[in-house]
Amino acid sequence: MKNSANRSLLVVGSVAFDDIDGPFGHFPQLLGGSASFFSAAAAYFTDKVSIVGVVGNDFPKEHIEYFESRNIDTSGIEHADGKTFLWKGKYSDDLSHRDTLDTQLGVFADFQPKLDASHKDCELLFLGNIHPSLQVSVLEQANKPLVVAADTMNFWMDCALEELHVMLSKVQTLIINDEEARQLSGEYSLVKAAAKIRAMGPETLVIKRGDAGAMLFHEGGNFFAPALPLEEPRDPTGAGDSFAGGFMGYLASYNGVIDHEAIRTAMIYGSVMASFLVEQFSLDGLRGLDETMIRDRFDLFRELSRFNHE
Amino acid sequence: MKNSANRSLLVVGSVAFDDIDGPFGHFPQLLGGSASFFSAAAAYFTDKVSIVGVVGNDFPKEHIEYFESRNIDTSGIEHADGKTFLWKGKYSDDLSHRDTLDTQLGVFADFQPKLDASHKDCELLFLGNIHPSLQVSVLEQANKPLVVAADTMNFWMDCALEELHVMLSKVQTLIINDEEARQLSGEYSLVKAAAKIRAMGPETLVIKRGDAGAMLFHEGGNFFAPALPLEEPRDPTGAGDSFAGGFMGYLASYNGVIDHEAIRTAMIYGSVMASFLVEQFSLDGLRGLDETMIRDRFDLFRELSRFNHE
Repeated sequence: MKNSANRSLLVVGSVAFDDIDGPFGHFPQLLGGSASFFSAAAAYFTDKVSIVGVVGNDFPKEHIEYFESRNIDTSGIEHADGKTFLWKGKYSDDLSHRDTLDTQLGVFADFQPKLDASHKDCELLFLGNIHPSLQVSVLEQANKPLVVAADTMNFWMDCALEELHVMLSKVQTLIINDEEARQLSGEYSLVKAAAKIRAMGPETLVIKRGDAGAMLFHEGGNFFAPALPLEEPRDPTGAGDSFAGGFMGYLASYNGVIDHEAIRTAMIYGSVMASFLVEQFSLDGLRGLDETMIRDRFDLFRELSRFNHE
Repeated sequence: MKNSANRSLLVVGSVAFDDIDGPFGHFPQLLGGSASFFSAAAAYFTDKVSIVGVVGNDFPKEHIEYFESRNIDTSGIEHADGKTFLWKGKYSDDLSHRDTLDTQLGVFADFQPKLDASHKDCELLFLGNIHPSLQVSVLEQANKPLVVAADTMNFWMDCALEELHVMLSKVQTLIINDEEARQLSGEYSLVKAAAKIRAMGPETLVIKRGDAGAMLFHEGGNFFAPALPLEEPRDPTGAGDSFAGGFMGYLASYNGVIDHEAIRTAMIYGSVMASFLVEQFSLDGLRGLDETMIRDRFDLFRELSRFNHE
């Protein structure tokens, strides 16, 4: 991005294979994982994106080369002996539901993220959806990043709730979906859920609702970012991580103090990147974009949202 | 509203009793019906709202008096011998689902809307959810209103599809929910659904999505109106009709040519009125409002939607 502040942005998360079955066919070995989607989106906003993750010895060199072609620092991707994390899922014909058919953790089971000196100095940090204790360990290694955001999921609420609460007490920003917000808070109303979750720690809460958009709850006010109505979405896998990548990437690029207004705009850039992602499989929708295409889509969101006030 | 164009607005639809069971208790004889919700919302925008409908001899005088206190013309409400239309429904604890337990048409079964001379000259006309043949008969009685909008439901798609298509070919604006749009078009993608439905006749299509907002599909562009995140919604019954009432009411009040920009703003006023409605039972949420309260809530939507463009 022009005039980008170009801050450094570290993502810790999975680099994985997705096996996707759905109305468009069966795709057995797609590049996936939270850190992959996140970094592919974020790298359009700053050229100082780094991944910390782990892959097995079955992980193709061309995926690493793709990250490197995007100026994403892959020095933090550990190559371990074993298999790369695999998620297998099946989507309903209308893409509105998905079932997890299989999860093979592989080398991810023993993942112990270690930050080297340059990664410790990251200015922005995104904690992808991993065990909350690992998220805390990453936080403890980092040297006071400007912005820390985290994701989590229902699974950790079921089996590591205490550790999750420790993590929540230490992060500024939480980016989760509506089901997760409801489970975490025990409230159906997202307004009530947001109040409870923000009292657990995160001053900035983003609740993603898929094709119903995303909501920001923040002391500066609530904000709603619509999802772009699409002719033919194909694969929602990774939409949430692409949203987070656009969101954090924009903040990394933002010239000036990261305030409420910057966070609102970041919500739209998150939605922009998610809208590109779901149009194609794997992270193909994030390949080959440029500043003009991103700006044009941003303008579509602007057009979608604007109204006269008289 | 100040500087209101104060155009006349006719609604043809049900005036009914709702029997609602849900997390807040059981309420057996609430004032309901599409024309009731619609007119209670619209009457904040123009004082020339008229209802054409039918009630039985069990219908309390105080409901008629309420309409009249709001300057709503009730001369078109026929008082027939028999029982008032009753809808009985049960909501899930989180209000996200409802089941119809009973529908007793009563005097509504023989409803044959007849417009008197003044009603025929209405400048705006809303065809509530009644048999599509009756909607067409009302259209044929009216003298070229400026704006005609209609609602419909899955039931008519199942049992009166041909008549429904005749109706669609004659109306400018259709206001339905996402499930109805999907059934009518046979498309899951709302973008594809909208294209097919607009090809059936209505140049302006509004798709309501409950607490996920409402979308406008129009040759002037697509627009998304968010729903206001509420602390404690209590009764969504009538939210769609209140939306339509705010939407059409705003257009009736709009000084100038009703163009794309006016329709966008009407979407927000529709959402404003629906947000008031769901906070209380029956149409209580629409009682006792004033211009300042409506304007303040409009400003909440503005604040919810705005973002910087740099």
